[in-house]
Amino acid sequence: MARHTSLSGFPEWLPSKQLVEDQVLDHLRRSFEIHGFSPVVTRAVEPVEQLLSKGETSKEIYLLSRLQAEENEDAQLGLHFDHTVPLARYVVENAGHLTFPFKRYAIGRVWRGERPQEGRFREFIQADVDVVGDGQLALHHDLELPLVMADALGSLPLPKLTIHTSNRKIAQGFYEAIGIADIAETLRIVDKLDKIGPKAVAEQLVQSGTTEEQANQALALAEISGGVEVADRVLALGARSELLDEGLDELVYVLEGGQEMSPGSIVADLKIARGLDYYTGTVYESLLEGHEDLGAICSGGRYDSLASSGKKTYPGVGLSIGVSRILSRMISSEALTVTRQSPTTVLVAVLNEDQRRESELIARALRARGIATDVSPGSQKLGKQIRYADRRTIPYVWFPDSGEVKDIRSGEQIPADPETWVPAREDMRPILMGEQ
Amino acid sequence: MARHTSLSGFPEWLPSKQLVEDQVLDHLRRSFEIHGFSPVVTRAVEPVEQLLSKGETSKEIYLLSRLQAEENEDAQLGLHFDHTVPLARYVVENAGHLTFPFKRYAIGRVWRGERPQEGRFREFIQADVDVVGDGQLALHHDLELPLVMADALGSLPLPKLTIHTSNRKIAQGFYEAIGIADIAETLRIVDKLDKIGPKAVAEQLVQSGTTEEQANQALALAEISGGVEVADRVLALGARSELLDEGLDELVYVLEGGQEMSPGSIVADLKIARGLDYYTGTVYESLLEGHEDLGAICSGGRYDSLASSGKKTYPGVGLSIGVSRILSRMISSEALTVTRQSPTTVLVAVLNEDQRRESELIARALRARGIATDVSPGSQKLGKQIRYADRRTIPYVWFPDSGEVKDIRSGEQIPADPETWVPAREDMRPILMGEQ
Repeated sequence: MARHTSLSGFPEWLPSKQLVEDQVLDHLRRSFEIHGFSPVVTRAVEPVEQLLSKGETSKEIYLLSRLQAEENEDAQLGLHFDHTVPLARYVVENAGHLTFPFKRYAIGRVWRGERPQEGRFREFIQADVDVVGDGQLALHHDLELPLVMADALGSLPLPKLTIHTSNRKIAQGFYEAIGIADIAETLRIVDKLDKIGPKAVAEQLVQSGTTEEQANQALALAEISGGVEVADRVLALGARSELLDEGLDELVYVLEGGQEMSPGSIVADLKIARGLDYYTGTVYESLLEGHEDLGAICSGGRYDSLASSGKKTYPGVGLSIGVSRILSRMISSEALTVTRQSPTTVLVAVLNEDQRRESELIARALRARGIATDVSPGSQKLGKQIRYADRRTIPYVWFPDSGEVKDIRSGEQIPADPETWVPAREDMRPILMGEQ
Repeated sequence: MARHTSLSGFPEWLPSKQLVEDQVLDHLRRSFEIHGFSPVVTRAVEPVEQLLSKGETSKEIYLLSRLQAEENEDAQLGLHFDHTVPLARYVVENAGHLTFPFKRYAIGRVWRGERPQEGRFREFIQADVDVVGDGQLALHHDLELPLVMADALGSLPLPKLTIHTSNRKIAQGFYEAIGIADIAETLRIVDKLDKIGPKAVAEQLVQSGTTEEQANQALALAEISGGVEVADRVLALGARSELLDEGLDELVYVLEGGQEMSPGSIVADLKIARGLDYYTGTVYESLLEGHEDLGAICSGGRYDSLASSGKKTYPGVGLSIGVSRILSRMISSEALTVTRQSPTTVLVAVLNEDQRRESELIARALRARGIATDVSPGSQKLGKQIRYADRRTIPYVWFPDSGEVKDIRSGEQIPADPETWVPAREDMRPILMGEQ
């Protein structure tokens, strides 16, 4: 059993699998820092009215109450359902102490009271990068962010990632130009294209008040995808507006930059609407090759007003990786593994309990040089101690009497000094591996 | 302002302070792995009846409810208030997949609905190490665990840590030998010695039903502290029992080992009772020199029955660091800092927006070699870009036109190739620093 879920929607890993998750999180963190992002950890809770005011996930909030609640209890609190709502609050509260544009990453748990199913959990890890401006934010960040994610995920042993992108201004400018009145509702219906197909989308659009002609045009727009040539294909549909032109310019900027900096990573896909209300420009959704059924595993977009306070407005652009969604699939199927199941490199044997201290001193010398070392918990026959190391996939056993260390995989045994011996480089720590 | 707490009891850090916390957590994690412990991350929630059945903190539980709760809702859930209750459940659920003795560490957030005050939060980080046996667990782990913590905390730039230890069997055996009936109540009163003083303790003991003579003897025991000689001082009080002897033997084992492996780290302190009901042998409480007012910042003990299922019993011994309690003091007072406020080592300047791609390519070459690099968000005058780097304490600015890199602290500027240049080793990442 790869993963036990004694509580539906709240997955936990066995220790060997936990190592995989830890290594992936370390890698993401390091990637984000390499790209100039700083860590921010926000509290797990927000006032409920904050949570309710944002996005469509607000209906799945977990509320908190104290078992021993008193009169005049504090504001009602809920667990955050993403890292974006806390970021918006954090930026407003700390604006005077931040340098803008503010580049932050967040890797941590979020909670949603959804019905659990494969790839959907009630507690899960998201890894976000966002850039927030003070009043304004240059377009080049719309290219920077997907490139960060392409690099961070692309350098893991995962299937190929493709970031699909569009721009809200294109759909909105286009719909306005062809006379569709309810832009939000149209976006919402078109967003279901992959799920319900073009026929049902067209029907729902007409039901929502568009003409058949308008519905067909909206569908024609949504079905455009590809490289920079998509701009011409949109224009060939005949509708024009300033907003549409602006959206196409922004889209082409992102596509051209993507093509140059990370060929094949970013493609246009004009059916992407992203349900969330607050996106106003570029939007992103990413798929893993061969795992399209998982849905978008890295999504986001630009919001002209991530946060605001008084006269100030903070635009932002960000992307969020659904880490648990990816890992639950990859770890369960063993498409992601580590070279061994324990962080420990060496087990020092214990000849008998009176000589345990001697083994401890060997372990101390190894640890002082960064070699993860355990001392045998018992002093049974050496064969039994070696089997214990083997069960934990610890590669080396150290024998204090002979002063020798044995690679229990190859059987090779050599004299060694705990002050100088080093394991093979690849044995220092468990190493992340993709499918063989 | 070092730390803002817009919600009382839920602290958050500014990015520069977050780096300190991250580095401390990384260090603890690495220390635990070096000592042979494996990571286990448990879900944040447990069924309320699990939480209520354990310990005295259970009255401060945060309960969860779904905003859109349905009929036949799942079991009532609460946020965990420590890492021990989840560990006990995890061990029972996964026993068949674990190798015993099972050594695990856990570093993560816990929640308690306590009244917030300095060093006490409603959301905080604990870092735990535990060893769990299957049916039995050797005494040497009672020495191993405090040595792990002495090493992990002692190798951080923190004030000196002293681990105070006692053994429940000593107090229990002694009380029984002198005829005290209510052992638990006596322990609870004696545990208040530091807070209310010996006079009040003696009064409360007599109120609880002991004779004055018994109260004085219990006090005399509690006031014993020091090295291995404490065993003789206990025996000199005259009471004897098998349990007392066993407790003294175990205590002396821990003290002798501590003296040899980490002199000065572990001292006997027989007033330590530890409130929690489930300890049955060795108990620990640790203080930081000069910060005794923070209270115990690393505590724990042995439980003969950490968990049980059917016929099986799992004894354990563990210690838990109150990371947030330590860091809130040390970070706020700047006793712990990092060498710079951002993970970024280099800022690549941008001459004008048309040449941004050139700067991006330099950044990419530096990042490929692990050098954390950002590209200037704007293309203002170079002086302004340098000031932006300075505000973020980024040590180097790269000039793409001249192909030179400048150390903005010293002003030194040299020609450099992004494929080969390396910063000073200490500039690769922010480095943790103690008080100067």
